[in-house]
Amino acid sequence: MSENKTLFQAFKETSFKTNGHGNRNAGVLKEAFEHVPSELESDMYGSGKVIEDFQTKMADMLGKEASVFFPSGTMAQQIALRIWCDEKGTKKVAYHPLSHLEIHEEDGLKELHGIEAVLLADKDRIITLEDVQEMEDEAAAILLELPQREIGGQLPDFGTLQSISDHCRDKGIFLHLDGARLLEVLPYYQKTAAEICALFDSVYISVYKGIGGIAGAVLAGDEAFIKKSKVWKRRHGGDLISLYPYIISADHYLDQRAGKMEKYYRNAREFAQFYNNCTRVVTRPEVPVSNMFHVHYDAAADSLEEILIEVYEKTGVGLSGYLRETSDSSCYYEVSIGDLYDTIPKEDLEEAFQLLNDRLKQM
Amino acid sequence: MSENKTLFQAFKETSFKTNGHGNRNAGVLKEAFEHVPSELESDMYGSGKVIEDFQTKMADMLGKEASVFFPSGTMAQQIALRIWCDEKGTKKVAYHPLSHLEIHEEDGLKELHGIEAVLLADKDRIITLEDVQEMEDEAAAILLELPQREIGGQLPDFGTLQSISDHCRDKGIFLHLDGARLLEVLPYYQKTAAEICALFDSVYISVYKGIGGIAGAVLAGDEAFIKKSKVWKRRHGGDLISLYPYIISADHYLDQRAGKMEKYYRNAREFAQFYNNCTRVVTRPEVPVSNMFHVHYDAAADSLEEILIEVYEKTGVGLSGYLRETSDSSCYYEVSIGDLYDTIPKEDLEEAFQLLNDRLKQM
Repeated sequence: MSENKTLFQAFKETSFKTNGHGNRNAGVLKEAFEHVPSELESDMYGSGKVIEDFQTKMADMLGKEASVFFPSGTMAQQIALRIWCDEKGTKKVAYHPLSHLEIHEEDGLKELHGIEAVLLADKDRIITLEDVQEMEDEAAAILLELPQREIGGQLPDFGTLQSISDHCRDKGIFLHLDGARLLEVLPYYQKTAAEICALFDSVYISVYKGIGGIAGAVLAGDEAFIKKSKVWKRRHGGDLISLYPYIISADHYLDQRAGKMEKYYRNAREFAQFYNNCTRVVTRPEVPVSNMFHVHYDAAADSLEEILIEVYEKTGVGLSGYLRETSDSSCYYEVSIGDLYDTIPKEDLEEAFQLLNDRLKQM
Repeated sequence: MSENKTLFQAFKETSFKTNGHGNRNAGVLKEAFEHVPSELESDMYGSGKVIEDFQTKMADMLGKEASVFFPSGTMAQQIALRIWCDEKGTKKVAYHPLSHLEIHEEDGLKELHGIEAVLLADKDRIITLEDVQEMEDEAAAILLELPQREIGGQLPDFGTLQSISDHCRDKGIFLHLDGARLLEVLPYYQKTAAEICALFDSVYISVYKGIGGIAGAVLAGDEAFIKKSKVWKRRHGGDLISLYPYIISADHYLDQRAGKMEKYYRNAREFAQFYNNCTRVVTRPEVPVSNMFHVHYDAAADSLEEILIEVYEKTGVGLSGYLRETSDSSCYYEVSIGDLYDTIPKEDLEEAFQLLNDRLKQM
């Protein structure tokens, strides 16, 4: 990320931010604990009502026998893949070239577990049934990320998911869902979480993306799988004496936001249109399939930065705090719609895009 | 742990508990956050004022160039040992047979890092200079736990520590401090944390033992070591987007309790005498060298349990919620002195031990 302090500063000072649920500050924790009695007992190394109740709730929601709360998705997913590799007696798994495991985890899967990755599909597109069918390597498991975040949050249709799942079951390949943003894709599929998860042997969901908790992840699967995952959780140093600060926050914001995913999705589609009506701008995907998309500019980052700062300062609407360069003359940023979008007066949003479009035309 | 619900229940219902700082409940978090402004920004994947300031504070306290906050000591210590193994190009480290790594981590060091353990000393005693001198295996690092928790919190004298440190430096063996309870041993040594840590290449300290935070650990060492540890922290899945619930609590309770370790130590010595004046009871060590010790009973767990329940119910003083059997006719539990000890009226404590001793004599 080529994060520019100036753009970041101008963004921070805006009154209205189009992305997310609000600042990630101590207020998020304080709100979640406001009505929690002081007497509520901590979990203890994975036991206790506070963690067990939430794990049961999440297992039910995901339609799996059991679930376990992890401090991070990085830990949860490496462990899921390790268990499937041990089950198959092979050290290979397959996933997208822009999977979180491939680009954000310092090769943890390889360095800690000795597992090699088979990269499916090209960087620019999602994994298809053909990619899976044509895979020559004997991978123990395939990881599918829904939506594929690093390409703007793209999705296969439900029929493709079913076909991939059927293929994997035929071939004895375990199928793992990187569902960091699982709830966020349900409105597009018009399915329940359990209906999506039924296609997968194991599922990870983040509690701080659309849900907006503080940190943490849930891994779900059958009883035997979850039992093994708890042993690996301890090995990784993830079996903390107390995880309740994350669990209680996750539960609080899940209840608050699980029913809002349809609205975030609708707002993302509306918002993408604002962008796509501007010259030199295209969103990816053009029509969002979740609450997220990427905004690609056919403009050099330093020129665009000046324009964005002007927009932020004149309209009070903040679109992004950073730009990622894709070439000398193009750049992009990510949009994730949450609670904040509906707090922006429509006329301010329209004014911001009017100014943005005017300036882009003048380039 | 042979945890008996009845004893545990009777213990829970007592008015005065002799161990620890109080219940591990949501009140611990709420107190720490009471005066924290909602606007305080979260840390972000290891960056940000809240984590950086605390890391600097801890590095200064420990007399090291840098430190990093980890979600757990399990993660911090495996990583420290892995870094030293990589540095030396060998996959062996040495520690006590009852080290946390050997008995509480499901073999994470071996399963994740492929590192073999050389066990120094016998289970029943602490590591001596001779154990280190006579070690035949080429270990990259030695881990010393101060105090050695599983044998009641025993300590070598400072001269022995110095000699072990000198020997390791001579031989090019890295020396790592498992200082989970580091602050708790300073009154015995009459040294600062930095003076103890100067003997070690890397140091881990827990923030939820004597300090009484919620969870978390700090790893300290030189800049190059800490830089590497952050890469491994990410690989392990410990580089959470937000660790502030643990950091702010750690900081709050560190400020509150760092100055009380001398008092905990004095109280532990006083309290051990209460035990040692009873028949069939001996503490280990007999004279505590920190805030902790083990209480060994020459009595069968089921008989002792009845006696303890009577003591708890008649005097309102709770000594332990569990018993660990060491044979058919002996058992023990652990004592860690914290804030609660001084809240117990002395006459109640004396009454409890009078009754305990009477009943033990009648056995």
